[in-house]
Amino acid sequence: MTFPPVPRFQARVLVSLRPSVLDPAGEATRAAAQRLGVDGITQLRIGKAMEVELEAADLDAARSQIERLSDRLLANPVIENWCLEQLKPVEGAGS
Amino acid sequence: MTFPPVPRFQARVLVSLRPSVLDPAGEATRAAAQRLGVDGITQLRIGKAMEVELEAADLDAARSQIERLSDRLLANPVIENWCLEQLKPVEGAGS
Repeated sequence: MTFPPVPRFQARVLVSLRPSVLDPAGEATRAAAQRLGVDGITQLRIGKAMEVELEAADLDAARSQIERLSDRLLANPVIENWCLEQLKPVEGAGS
Repeated sequence: MTFPPVPRFQARVLVSLRPSVLDPAGEATRAAAQRLGVDGITQLRIGKAMEVELEAADLDAARSQIERLSDRLLANPVIENWCLEQLKPVEGAGS
């Protein structure tokens, strides 16, 4: 008896500081750009990009897992927003 | 005498660890997900997402500025890759 392979998915979750939250690291990077001679940078904010691979029954189940993960672990809802930017099956998974 | 407004652009640069570089923070997050009861996460890697606003003469000039910025400041080429994921004019800029 063989089980069918579990579908695999790839997701990208972007976590960014809320607009009202200051970003000193981003501002320091912007100032450094100017000193380096890269002109015209008016704003620079640094967020996180999480690349996640997961197994789930289908796309809806995968989305639901990612939402739980992001709400509970990846983002701090007091100062951060998150968005699921990409969710797609892994090519060739299970073949 | 009035000068025409300088076009403004919005860019997103993703900086990720090279595949050969270990990511202990990502691995710790993956393990924490499992303890939280979010099953099926097989890999999790944490990169940076830089949201940049800049002024440039046109789209090509903006791309060139972003490339200099990323090569020289945003990514550490020894352990990181970067890609320009998005570059678009800011709606309503100069109007």
